Amino acid sequence: MERGRYRVGEQEIIQTQQLEKLEELVLQKQYAQIRDFLSPMEAPDIAQLCAGLEESRLPLVFRLLPKEQAAEVFVELDSDQQEMLIQGFSNTELKEVLDELYLDDTVDIVEEMPANVVKRILRHSDPETRKSINEILKYPEDSTGSIMTTEYVDLKETMTVEGALKRIRRTGLDKETINICYVVDEHRHLIGLLSIRQLLLSEETDVIGKIMETNIISVHTLDDQETTAQALRKYGFLALPVVDSENRLVGIVTVDDAMDVLQEEVTEDIELMAAILPGDKPYLKTGVLETWKARTPWLLILMLSATFTGIILTHFESSLQACAILTSFIPMLSGTGGNSGTQASTAVIRALSLQEVHFCDLVRVIWKEFRVSICCGVCLAAANFVKMMVVDRWLMHNSAVTPLVALVVCATLVGTVICAKLVGCSLPILAEKVGFDPAVMASPFISTIVDSLSLLIYFQFATLLLGV
Amino acid sequence: MERGRYRVGEQEIIQTQQLEKLEELVLQKQYAQIRDFLSPMEAPDIAQLCAGLEESRLPLVFRLLPKEQAAEVFVELDSDQQEMLIQGFSNTELKEVLDELYLDDTVDIVEEMPANVVKRILRHSDPETRKSINEILKYPEDSTGSIMTTEYVDLKETMTVEGALKRIRRTGLDKETINICYVVDEHRHLIGLLSIRQLLLSEETDVIGKIMETNIISVHTLDDQETTAQALRKYGFLALPVVDSENRLVGIVTVDDAMDVLQEEVTEDIELMAAILPGDKPYLKTGVLETWKARTPWLLILMLSATFTGIILTHFESSLQACAILTSFIPMLSGTGGNSGTQASTAVIRALSLQEVHFCDLVRVIWKEFRVSICCGVCLAAANFVKMMVVDRWLMHNSAVTPLVALVVCATLVGTVICAKLVGCSLPILAEKVGFDPAVMASPFISTIVDSLSLLIYFQFATLLLGV
Repeated sequence: MERGRYRVGEQEIIQTQQLEKLEELVLQKQYAQIRDFLSPMEAPDIAQLCAGLEESRLPLVFRLLPKEQAAEVFVELDSDQQEMLIQGFSNTELKEVLDELYLDDTVDIVEEMPANVVKRILRHSDPETRKSINEILKYPEDSTGSIMTTEYVDLKETMTVEGALKRIRRTGLDKETINICYVVDEHRHLIGLLSIRQLLLSEETDVIGKIMETNIISVHTLDDQETTAQALRKYGFLALPVVDSENRLVGIVTVDDAMDVLQEEVTEDIELMAAILPGDKPYLKTGVLETWKARTPWLLILMLSATFTGIILTHFESSLQACAILTSFIPMLSGTGGNSGTQASTAVIRALSLQEVHFCDLVRVIWKEFRVSICCGVCLAAANFVKMMVVDRWLMHNSAVTPLVALVVCATLVGTVICAKLVGCSLPILAEKVGFDPAVMASPFISTIVDSLSLLIYFQFATLLLGV
Repeated sequence: MERGRYRVGEQEIIQTQQLEKLEELVLQKQYAQIRDFLSPMEAPDIAQLCAGLEESRLPLVFRLLPKEQAAEVFVELDSDQQEMLIQGFSNTELKEVLDELYLDDTVDIVEEMPANVVKRILRHSDPETRKSINEILKYPEDSTGSIMTTEYVDLKETMTVEGALKRIRRTGLDKETINICYVVDEHRHLIGLLSIRQLLLSEETDVIGKIMETNIISVHTLDDQETTAQALRKYGFLALPVVDSENRLVGIVTVDDAMDVLQEEVTEDIELMAAILPGDKPYLKTGVLETWKARTPWLLILMLSATFTGIILTHFESSLQACAILTSFIPMLSGTGGNSGTQASTAVIRALSLQEVHFCDLVRVIWKEFRVSICCGVCLAAANFVKMMVVDRWLMHNSAVTPLVALVVCATLVGTVICAKLVGCSLPILAEKVGFDPAVMASPFISTIVDSLSLLIYFQFATLLLGV
């Protein structure tokens, strides 16, 4: 297999072999060969190789890369490695790398670096870039402004197609994308857009103003980055124009950045749903203390709120003493309740984040979950009744498991499943309405609430049917 | 605000107003106005409006759309609506819509339709399209072949840039993308690729073979669609070439389809993690029975496996009778254990699906989780000891909560958290190794296992320290 040409499916095996080869070349100081070895590769792959290298060897390998490729690899490195490299750079080296970077990547790097490194980066950027960086840094984190780039192709409506193509040939090299070009008036108001495809398929003498698309979907600098990324996905666009409050074009967001945003946001949602405070580092790069800090707060809150279940159990202590067999079904009941609630809340949280469900659908959602919960509850209760009679009573000769006890457990099961699904489906919607992240209302939170509810239902039925 | 021009953030409000307006126009039979009203909009927005319309009005509105737009909207409709429209189409209408569709969209539609509709679609496609559809339909579900399109721009290495641009102008209109062009030899082997940007920035007399990129990353028709989509994201490409086992170019996968795949796969993972069998319909479009069918199997399995906790509790019934206060801490212990396990398993499942963690990292992961679990466990135990002494004993005057009981509970807490994290982090990795989807090893599954473990630990410590 030729270097640099490979199929995605084979990559994991290749990567291990490549790392061995690279380490060998470094040991043998075969610098020309290292350059030849790396140059046909894509930047993310080189960065992955660098992550596997001994840290002290990174600057050496990095300096062997051709200038443009070095910049591309630099963007893909993790921020610790970037910082280490910058600390070791001469001023000329730093400037060379910075000159090759796209603006949005520079901003990403600046956001991660400590203050002294940021100062050095800004000092070695050219004045125009510095101004743009400072502009973008002003936008709030997670806003569309913070992920946009200001390097796009702009055209005037009076240009011809020929003139436009000339302009693209002249300025296109430094632009993040030329696939979509934006038409602005003299006040930089966005008045149209044009794909490179439309340009190429038009006559050279056509005037831009006549052929441009004027039905424009744009995003605002302060829109949530996830909204923007979802819009790019929904419309299948390659880029979206970003405008300010006066509808002036200030930047664009491209599809590759949108994909990264969607990925990060999903990871954040999943972490929240598992009661973890979201971080932004990969799993194995997060230290033990950081992981501990991200996990303990919710564990503590949930543990302390389990005090309620304790109080309920203490309150019904005499009932449990009178009919000890009841205790052995508590874990099953609270487990099933938790799982039922998790199913409903997860389904609703995902639907909310895909914008398939809104607050106005609350009643529809509750009505749906109510019917589902009755089906699920009855089905589980029937299975459980058979299991208790056959396994517990007949096979394990546990005479305390009477049909009446089974009835109490099964009735509780139906009640718990209904409560769990209703709580599970409504809390995320209500949370979003009042401005919380619905993802917090997932499994652990719902389980804790449902635990108490299931015990209350259990003792109600026990008192009613068994008279304990 | 002009029609068709809007900012993404305002869309939800606009959509409601637009639906009212559209319904009004339909009632007043203002057909020309409906056409004018809809034509500046994007297809996904029109489809969303159509979803809100009364079903009987859809064919009328659909027939008012210009041909090309009608096809774009058709692709965005859900499969029930597509089927209804096709059933009502005349043969000419069906052919008109099919002619406008991109091949990969046609395949998507064919995959969802019942057999008689599929036959009709194939009968009215032109022979070449029919052949391509049948080819793509042969690839397994979830394979890259099943999401690719065969409509790409291919060039020869002997062409000049001028010749290539001419070819693109001549054939580009029917291609899914012209942003990346593929260079093949006479046996259709993929030998290079070229972005439209490189083409435009080159001299007209340059020869394609000299300027094309020969370091090609490709995917195989049988690669998992998620692998392909993740590769597109990682490299930030707009399309990836798909080759067969002989390295012949058979199609391309574009970034818009990759985004949809990633979204679907994440939804599937999240559903599995919540013990739901994955479906492919939006939440509100899934019927009660379907939802019930997707949720009951895992609930049943998990409920029945809770039998073990029941057995453990029955076994230690006498201990619980002797020291009744122990019962009241069981829900807190199993809840905290479940939550700790959920955190570890969720973090690892996500890291696996982002390929940050592989099987070879198993020991590193376990070592990390072990240290995290000790920190978490000790911290929770300390908080719990204080809480039991202050709240339970001092404020609530529960004299049964002695320091020794608190010690048993806290020691169990530490043991449970350690077990939970270790089980939680290792099961997903092991599951992936043996070919299961690691997402199944999430919250509900882990909680059920940890429930039993925490009880066993609890009674060990109770016997040891309290002698019950």
